This record gives sequence, structure tokens and C-alpha cells, in this order.
Amino acid sequence: MIFLDNASTTKISNLALQTYNQYSTDKYFNPSALYMKGASIQKELENARQTILSIINADKFDNIIFTSGATEANNMVLNSFIKYKNKTALIGISEHPSVYNVAKNLLDNGYNVKFVGLNDNGTIDINDFKSKLTDDVNFVSIMHVNNETGAINPISEINSIIREKNQKIIFHSDGVQAFGKIDVDVDELGVDLYTISSHKIFGPKGVGALYIKKGVNINPLMIGGGQEMNLRSGTENTPGIFSFVTACKIASDNLHDNYNSAVKKAHYIKDNLELIDNIRINSDNNCSPYIISFSLPHLRAETILRMLEQKDIIIGNGSACSSHKKGNRILSNMGVEQEYIEGALRVSINHDTSTDDIDNFIKELKLAINEYKKNTNR
Amino acid sequence: MIFLDNASTTKISNLALQTYNQYSTDKYFNPSALYMKGASIQKELENARQTILSIINADKFDNIIFTSGATEANNMVLNSFIKYKNKTALIGISEHPSVYNVAKNLLDNGYNVKFVGLNDNGTIDINDFKSKLTDDVNFVSIMHVNNETGAINPISEINSIIREKNQKIIFHSDGVQAFGKIDVDVDELGVDLYTISSHKIFGPKGVGALYIKKGVNINPLMIGGGQEMNLRSGTENTPGIFSFVTACKIASDNLHDNYNSAVKKAHYIKDNLELIDNIRINSDNNCSPYIISFSLPHLRAETILRMLEQKDIIIGNGSACSSHKKGNRILSNMGVEQEYIEGALRVSINHDTSTDDIDNFIKELKLAINEYKKNTNR
Repeated sequence: MIFLDNASTTKISNLALQTYNQYSTDKYFNPSALYMKGASIQKELENARQTILSIINADKFDNIIFTSGATEANNMVLNSFIKYKNKTALIGISEHPSVYNVAKNLLDNGYNVKFVGLNDNGTIDINDFKSKLTDDVNFVSIMHVNNETGAINPISEINSIIREKNQKIIFHSDGVQAFGKIDVDVDELGVDLYTISSHKIFGPKGVGALYIKKGVNINPLMIGGGQEMNLRSGTENTPGIFSFVTACKIASDNLHDNYNSAVKKAHYIKDNLELIDNIRINSDNNCSPYIISFSLPHLRAETILRMLEQKDIIIGNGSACSSHKKGNRILSNMGVEQEYIEGALRVSINHDTSTDDIDNFIKELKLAINEYKKNTNR
Repeated sequence: MIFLDNASTTKISNLALQTYNQYSTDKYFNPSALYMKGASIQKELENARQTILSIINADKFDNIIFTSGATEANNMVLNSFIKYKNKTALIGISEHPSVYNVAKNLLDNGYNVKFVGLNDNGTIDINDFKSKLTDDVNFVSIMHVNNETGAINPISEINSIIREKNQKIIFHSDGVQAFGKIDVDVDELGVDLYTISSHKIFGPKGVGALYIKKGVNINPLMIGGGQEMNLRSGTENTPGIFSFVTACKIASDNLHDNYNSAVKKAHYIKDNLELIDNIRINSDNNCSPYIISFSLPHLRAETILRMLEQKDIIIGNGSACSSHKKGNRILSNMGVEQEYIEGALRVSINHDTSTDDIDNFIKELKLAINEYKKNTNR
């Protein structure tokens, strides 16, 4: 099987799975227990936080809260800061549903939320951002790398604009498609809060984390036994957390090699895709090399995707999270025409994707398009 | 090692861990993806819901929502129903912190919450319950089995009282210490909502579920991609969920044999504990046989617990979730005197606990008590 839907989820690495198994069997103790076997797991949890803080170049006095995934972390953040009726939140229009839909819901409940538009390459429109950054703005959430197009937002630049306006604005970035794939330095980015996920970087599903800068106060989404410094109750998913940390270390250690290789693969894919008639490549060369969005006008993406699956090639259509929804919020806000939206597909590669895999994919894609056209007389 | 803290957490079974590994590697696809490999996992998720519904004798049109654990399920329930300023919620005073602390927090935020007291055996005081069941009550949460004493609340009887008063009251029960250990028949119990957990029944950590009776409307705690019928967004933790379902099946298949054996073990433990001077057994014979709470007056429980750990015997003190807190809400509400509260310990057995384990525990406990007394001249 050639799996080219890594932005949706990834297969856990052997080492990460080994860690999961180890902490499920030898070290299954409850970290909140009073005996030493519990306390020692608690100690390891603190070390795990420091490992992640170090990977993202955070201060050791900053915080990492482990969650059940990025969706939980994003919900926690938005519910903590969009709660003042006289304040306004600025949210990127291209955010993942776990930010966008929460913001929409809060807007529907009477809170002030403004959405910032996109440039035609999928990044945040800085002029629109500046015009909406009014005195009543107290919270901004702009994702680092878009999950459908790979567009990389200029987080550091946005931070400078925010800080120039008002030092007290809380700045959150959803880094799910950035962390472990491109350089993430929270000090340089200037963010107060940063969301990361495990199952996008060859770690286990059901785990994520929220980076919280020292001094930033966030409200728990779940109350209970007071775990995670009272910010996230519930018995810690220690096998999942430590397995995630293993995945973080591997991703961090190999980040630059993988990135350089991904850049070459992305160019190779785009060069080949561009030879297909009428194709539109939605991801420009400034995007993350791990995600390539393209559109085949007048073709149903779902049909092509299923035809490729018959050949054991798995690609995606936009994000899995919105795969069953009509339309496409992100492409339409980039100004992509309707016929290119319905035929939008996404290829997301990983460090294991080979040139052979790409050649096969391109070959089968061309055959699928031809067969589709023959069947529909287009 | 003799592990007698199974009410805190359990070691995952080999079969459940095998399931975890299988769905992490061969079947790691995102269930929301449009391709068949994703859709087939989605289908398996639906089957998993039916398996659990069947185990708890629910209707096939009822619902199961998978969560990151019982804490999340409980938070979801309380936040859904304690939100009307002119309504009152009745909550057991002995609830787990993931119910009790949420209720306290909502009370502090101006909602009407009344706590129902306990009998001296740790069960809900039915007279107190009846007196508080006023016309404005719209929601009741009473746990099935208490996590510190094993006291089993008469859920079915409480349901009859509720239904006689008002058919529309929503009745929730936290069944974390009941499910997989004693018979759970939601039809007979009459509950609208029932919380279950995986890591207490030899399944993985970080997974739980909420039973929702058909027609009961609950609000999501997390919004996003719309997974779990829009009630719980976030990529499904499929390895965790399917591993949990394996654990559910094993627990269900062996429930009666394990229960009968646990009853004998509990009697044996209590018979032996009763021979210790001044001991107070806090769990009567109507309690779940899996949990035995006892108190050693004028002794610090933590010291005894650590002395036993030196001999490779692990027991608990109350619940792990409140192990670092002062006092004990549950024992004090049962009318237990202060000196017996500070010296409270909890033994929680499992199907593997042997007579030899119990003999060893009793022997080492006696030695620890003697050493403690010698050292402190008591």
C-alpha cells in the first residue's frame, strides 16, 4: 500500500509503539498514587513535559498540558479566552474545525468573533488582519500550517503586529501540521499557546498537548481529580503520553533531514502533476512540503480517490475531519473557482514516501483520470 | 509484586494490548476518511458501540459515545444538565471528584446544586434524597459503586423514586467501579446516562464511554470535526477504543465467575483484618467485593502504605484521585471518626488475586503495624 494521507493520520512508529507497550505493562501505575511506583511515573511525566518544552525551544518554566488530542487543546484555549462579551477574538478563516467550529459556536452564542481572510496562496491576509485588530481584541488564533493546503502562516510577523498593538493580547497557534515537520520555536514565534498532536507525527492516537507560556492563565475544560496541575483532570494516559514523547524525539532528531527530503519529493510531485491537463496546484512552493493540494476540474474527487484505492494508493480529499461536508471553506476563501473545489484532492507524504511511490501514484492517477473521462464522456 | 490497588488502575490484559497493537499498525486509518479503509474502521466503531450496548442490556437504538475517559464523560454530562438557573441538580456527596468537583464548581457559579448525604455504610441516604427531590429538580447524578468503600447504591430504587416524582428528570450514574465487576443492566437500573471506564477493567488508559438513552440530548464538551455523531469531536482513538471493547468482552464473559470468587476473597480478607486490634472495616458485606476499605486509628495510612511497598505489596489510600488531598469527604460523611479517617487504607483486588497474595498482605500488614507502633511508641 502507498499511503499518501499522512496529514490525516499516521501509522505509529515501532519505537513509539514499544514505549506504549512498556508503559502499559511494566509501568502501568497511577501517577497520582501515593506509593513510590506511582510517584516515579509522576516524575517521568514532569520530565516528559521538559522534553517537549526543550524541543520547541520554550522556557523550562513554561508549561505543557497533555490532552486527549489537539481538538481538546483547541477547545480548552478558545473556551478560556472567548468569554468576555466586550472583547473580540480574531480567528483565521482557514482554521481546523476544532478552532473554527468552536469560534462559530461562540459567535452564535453572542460573543464577538471576527474571521480573518486569506491570500490566494492560503496564508492569512495581513492587511485584513491589521484592519480587524481593533482595541477590543484580546485573543488571536491563527494556525501555523494549514491542514488542507500546507500554507504556512507568518506567525512571527503576526506576533509582531499583535505586540505592537497590545502586549496583553493572548496569541494561540494550532501547530498540528507544523510540529515535528517544520521548525517550531515558540520563542521566535512569540505565541502564548501552541497546540500539538501525536497521531500526525507517528505517535499514538488520542494524545496531544498544549504549550502554555508562563504567566498565561487557562481554564480547565474538565474538572475532577486535579491532574495536570488542575488544568486537565482524569487519570493520565501515561502509555499514550510517553509514546507521544518518543514520537516527538524521533521527529525532532530527524526534522531537518526529513524536511530537506520532503522538499525534493514535493517538487517532484508538483512537476509531475503539472503535466496533467487542466490541473490546478493549490499549494505553492512556500507551503509545507508535506502537503500538496491539487484540483481536477469537473471531476468528483471522491471517485478518483476510490479508484486509486483500488490500486492500493491512499490519498485524501481536503481534511478527513471535513471529508463528509459539502464545499470547502479554505479553497473558496483562497478564491478558487467552484469547479476546482469539487475536484480537490490532497496528497500528504511522509519520510518513507519513495520516488517509486510517487511514480506509481502519478501513473495510477493519470489512468484513473482517463478512465473517469471515458466513463463520463468528458 | 502483589498489586492490591485495582480500583485506582489496572494492568492492561494481553488480549486488550494485542488489540491495541493491531489497530495501531494494520488498521491505523482515520475513520473519517472517505476511502474504504477509513469507512471500514468507521463500521467497526459502530459495531463496537453495539457490543457495549449489548453488554449493558441497552436498546440497540440507544447510544454509546467514546471519550478520553470517565472524567470527560462525567464533565460532559454535568455541563449539559446543570445549566438552568431555575432548576436544581441532586448530586451524591460521595461522588468521584469528576462529578463532585464539577458540581461544586457549578454551584460556585450560581447554579442550584444540592448534595445528598450518606448512610453509615456509605450508600445514599434515601430519606435525605426524597426530602431534596423537590419540584425544581431536573437532574440527578448518583454513582453506582463508590470508589473508596465499594458501597453499592440502590440505583434501581432511586430511579423508581425519581420517576414517581417526575418522568422528565435526567438520571445519570457513574458506573466506573461497577461496570465489568457487578451486573450492569441499564434497563433495570433505569438510568438515562451511565459512565464507564476502560483502565479500571484491564483495558487501556485514556478511554471511556458514555451510555446515552435514546431521546436524551446531551451537549458536546468538544467541538470540531463532528466525530461521534457531533457529540465528541477529535480523531477517534481507535486503537484505544477497540482495545477497550476487548477488555469489556473479557470482563463481561467472566463477570459471574470473577464476582463469586471476589466475594470469597473479600470475606477472607475481612475475616483476617478483623483480627487486628482496633481496626475498623469501612466496607460492609453489601459492598462490592472488589473494594475493602479499613482504618487503623492513630496510624498514618501513608506510612503503612510505603512500608508495604518495601515488601512489594501495593495498596491504596482512598482514591488515587484524592490521595494528595487532606481529609476524606466520603468517610466523614459516613460518620467515621477523625482518628479512623487519617488511618484509612483501601485494598482493591482483581480476578488474579490469590489466597497466597492475601496471606502475604495480611502478614506484612501486621508486621508493618507492629514496627510502626514500636517506632512511634504507641
